[in-house]
Amino acid sequence: MGVVPSSTDLVTELSAEECWELLESEEFGRLAYRLADEVHIVPINYLIDGRSLLFRTAPGNKLLAAALQSDVALEIDWHDDLAAWSVVARGHLRQLDEAQAHRVDALPRRSWLTTHKYEVVELEPDALTGRRFRLHRGEPDHELQPT
Amino acid sequence: MGVVPSSTDLVTELSAEECWELLESEEFGRLAYRLADEVHIVPINYLIDGRSLLFRTAPGNKLLAAALQSDVALEIDWHDDLAAWSVVARGHLRQLDEAQAHRVDALPRRSWLTTHKYEVVELEPDALTGRRFRLHRGEPDHELQPT
Repeated sequence: MGVVPSSTDLVTELSAEECWELLESEEFGRLAYRLADEVHIVPINYLIDGRSLLFRTAPGNKLLAAALQSDVALEIDWHDDLAAWSVVARGHLRQLDEAQAHRVDALPRRSWLTTHKYEVVELEPDALTGRRFRLHRGEPDHELQPT
Repeated sequence: MGVVPSSTDLVTELSAEECWELLESEEFGRLAYRLADEVHIVPINYLIDGRSLLFRTAPGNKLLAAALQSDVALEIDWHDDLAAWSVVARGHLRQLDEAQAHRVDALPRRSWLTTHKYEVVELEPDALTGRRFRLHRGEPDHELQPT
């Protein structure tokens, strides 16, 4: 899974393949988007389909409608006392038409949102980045973010 | 702590007091910010000081410099199979001067970043919102996001 630090570096970049493996291992992330000058974050349940992330949303969801107007970033992460990782997928959301929306029905995992009426939104990442951090909680010289 | 759903509603708004309790119980969150038209998210280790969130950052941290130019949103969350909560603090970052920066030294918790040279950034939230969700993984009618 690539979650355990394998080098002596405090921050290690993950490969695209490692990022996808981590995205496939999770189903809960956070979606950040712009609304005019404001930045918003919402927790979101996603499904992986090939090299895309799919979200189910209720018709008329205001937050998703706002997110469709701008680029977005979806983040997943994990940490314990010794290590952490974070994966960020950036791109634009696209609402799928009815024919395409059936892609979610073919997936082995279920969305946590399974109302009878729903819309499906796709994020096909333009950029995918991941970092693994060694943590030194309470010890000097740890930096969670690379400079 | 207010983390267990106490009503039959699928989504419950948290009070400001519950939001602060949850912020105080955690120290790892995600900071979303704008960089021109792009939205970015980075994992971040924070400390609570009164009604502010403090971050330590290495001098010249590019991400924080970018975040200082726009408004930001810091999010923390938690979930298991039955429930989830999410708290979002929105506002502007402010870099503290040397006299103010010593506020972090008086806090009982240590930052995970404790290099000898660091700068301290403060987020005093303009808006603080929290939501608690009942989850129905694999069952119908759950919606993680309110519409």
